[in-house]
Amino acid sequence: MNLPKKIQIREVGPRDGLQAEKNLVSTENKIELINRIFKCNIRMIEATSFVNPRAIPQLSDAEQVITRINRPVDSVVSALVGNSRGVQRAIRAGVEEIQVVISASEEHNRRNVNMDIIKSIQQLEGVVPEAFQSGVVVRAAIATAFGCPFEGEISIKQVLWLVGVFLEMGIKQVTLADTAGLGDPLLVSRVVGEIWNRYPNIELALHFHDTRGLGLANSLAGMQSGVTILEASLGGLGGCPFIPKATGNIATEDLVFMCEKMGVDTNVQLEEMLETARWLEKVIGRELPGRVMKAEASESCTPI
Amino acid sequence: MNLPKKIQIREVGPRDGLQAEKNLVSTENKIELINRIFKCNIRMIEATSFVNPRAIPQLSDAEQVITRINRPVDSVVSALVGNSRGVQRAIRAGVEEIQVVISASEEHNRRNVNMDIIKSIQQLEGVVPEAFQSGVVVRAAIATAFGCPFEGEISIKQVLWLVGVFLEMGIKQVTLADTAGLGDPLLVSRVVGEIWNRYPNIELALHFHDTRGLGLANSLAGMQSGVTILEASLGGLGGCPFIPKATGNIATEDLVFMCEKMGVDTNVQLEEMLETARWLEKVIGRELPGRVMKAEASESCTPI
Repeated sequence: MNLPKKIQIREVGPRDGLQAEKNLVSTENKIELINRIFKCNIRMIEATSFVNPRAIPQLSDAEQVITRINRPVDSVVSALVGNSRGVQRAIRAGVEEIQVVISASEEHNRRNVNMDIIKSIQQLEGVVPEAFQSGVVVRAAIATAFGCPFEGEISIKQVLWLVGVFLEMGIKQVTLADTAGLGDPLLVSRVVGEIWNRYPNIELALHFHDTRGLGLANSLAGMQSGVTILEASLGGLGGCPFIPKATGNIATEDLVFMCEKMGVDTNVQLEEMLETARWLEKVIGRELPGRVMKAEASESCTPI
Repeated sequence: MNLPKKIQIREVGPRDGLQAEKNLVSTENKIELINRIFKCNIRMIEATSFVNPRAIPQLSDAEQVITRINRPVDSVVSALVGNSRGVQRAIRAGVEEIQVVISASEEHNRRNVNMDIIKSIQQLEGVVPEAFQSGVVVRAAIATAFGCPFEGEISIKQVLWLVGVFLEMGIKQVTLADTAGLGDPLLVSRVVGEIWNRYPNIELALHFHDTRGLGLANSLAGMQSGVTILEASLGGLGGCPFIPKATGNIATEDLVFMCEKMGVDTNVQLEEMLETARWLEKVIGRELPGRVMKAEASESCTPI
């Protein structure tokens, strides 16, 4: 089995996880969450989102969070932005990276940002140069890259086209996001393979949701394809709080467990990660989907 | 990605799943469960266990279940047995296959069957010929083959040794069971690789628990290593009912979803499987860990 010796974990819980939480989490707890994640040795973090506070009230304290966290010198603090105002706010607050997003699916893009893909691209063409001029990295995510709940299958051609669009803007960091958990390991290896075949120098990251339980299998397939940046959310925070059974992101600590067990170095302190995930469950006030943090309790109970 | 064109699913819910359920399930519901699983086109099934009814009261109706289910002509109905009396009961009831088990871990074997591994082997040497004389297949499972909650790592040498012991008894069907969910994809590919390197003609099956969320990733690794018989439990039934958060077997329908999505033919009717899993949740009276059956509810809720 071909695996990378080392990968980087990009933590997205403070943004992708929290944005789905109906109950407001205090700014203090958000700051503590990010500080604790840094203490576990994670260095890439999507910390918040500079979007209209009315759209996502949970993340309306983005400036506070970015300016008050304790940032290790080698950290890459990122924030999601949607437009020029967001870019300006993020840069002013002092992020190292801004994250932009376009869906591979027209219908999902419309529902997510209320415009079609071409319009999204035009908007980015306006704001991306602004970000580069300020010296920040721009990372682009392709949402629904492995399937769309509204449109079904997404052609690899469509994903390749978007990668090309981003490259033309000067963006070299691209995240393929399985927004609805519709990807499978074979598809992951095909999409990654075709992208690197066409654009060998692009830096790919993968972002899997565990909606159908395939998140870690898809992460494995991504690593087998050579991808060394994997996104995850502490405790598996994310998904939709209005549908209690719906699961969201893969749990960072479960991904770390899988990697370290296979000898793939993540540099993450797993025990501290598990403690932080248990602390996060208390902050959020409900059970989170992460598995490894619950496994100890089941150790004593193992009939064949 | 190298995958088999076709695999066989071996359903273990009626035995491995139900035995962990504290609340008794009626014989009628067990029979309906198995009949429904057959209707989904699954043909290999571990239907019950002929062990001391005081040890596992849930499965004390083993004879009733085996004799009253509607068996398709091409089905392989299997039952777990622990001793000579169990073999006789199983054969009299009319199983096609008996399943025996030894743990790779001394400590786990002692806790599971109250004797050390050598004693277990001697007991099997007494009963296996009896089974073969009756014309049934004997399948041997190696429990804790990928790690033990009490002893930690299990050496591949120990697993290889047990496979050799089984082969000397004439057993050609061997299941490697990750009883405590401690395996990882790399370990799976190594163990399978070494076994087939030494014993190229053995028929291997894999049995994964999802305790740490790696069940499907491990199944993927198994298929990539060429294994074409995978065990799973409908709805993910299993684990320990006394620890609500502890998860057990991988969910059959999730495994089927992953396979079919990748074009690996299972011959299973996924939609009927999902319906049966939802029915099983009602029978058991609580939410089961299977993911795909819950995914539809989350379709309408997919922020990036």
